[in-house]
Amino acid sequence: MTDCIFCKIANQEIPADLLYQDEHIVAFADIAPKAEKHLLVIPRRHIENLNDLTADDEVLMGHLMLRLPEIAAAQKLTGFRTITNTGKEGGQEVFHMHFHILGGSELPGF
Amino acid sequence: MTDCIFCKIANQEIPADLLYQDEHIVAFADIAPKAEKHLLVIPRRHIENLNDLTADDEVLMGHLMLRLPEIAAAQKLTGFRTITNTGKEGGQEVFHMHFHILGGSELPGF
Repeated sequence: MTDCIFCKIANQEIPADLLYQDEHIVAFADIAPKAEKHLLVIPRRHIENLNDLTADDEVLMGHLMLRLPEIAAAQKLTGFRTITNTGKEGGQEVFHMHFHILGGSELPGF
Repeated sequence: MTDCIFCKIANQEIPADLLYQDEHIVAFADIAPKAEKHLLVIPRRHIENLNDLTADDEVLMGHLMLRLPEIAAAQKLTGFRTITNTGKEGGQEVFHMHFHILGGSELPGF
């Protein structure tokens, strides 16, 4: 997607400190943190949100989920909250699927 | 786990209206809903949280993630928020991995 800010971060067209990266996903700090530590983990490929997944994405999603605790641990988070918002009604603001990792301070209730 | 309430729900030792079930996962309504619709999706097998995953769980996690939007859609949710809490510091209260699906009403910020 030409105008997707998260595609540009994944492609390093916009400079961002990638806290983790591999062939399929990248992780970076949220620029408007809602907790002491607030990371975002995204697939490199443009997928809008969970509603946009197809059966071909099962391996990617399994991979992403297994990396979440590793990415959190690398930031010294033993406990953390993971959130992904799907669609406008779900509070999604950037339409490139992203998983928030929140931790390091008392987490707001939900 | 003998004393795990979510294991008992998955095994139907505690009656619960299963909104979805297959060989690997089950879904049911949260008994203390934080939104108009509040579902929980859990693996049948006792896995404590994301920190407890091993490489063998990638297929299970990919499967679970692909089912989330289908389970939400079956409840007429086009947009929804998905949350999983890992560890006490992450706000986890029941130590059997569970994914909250929240929707159907204005979602609180996070």
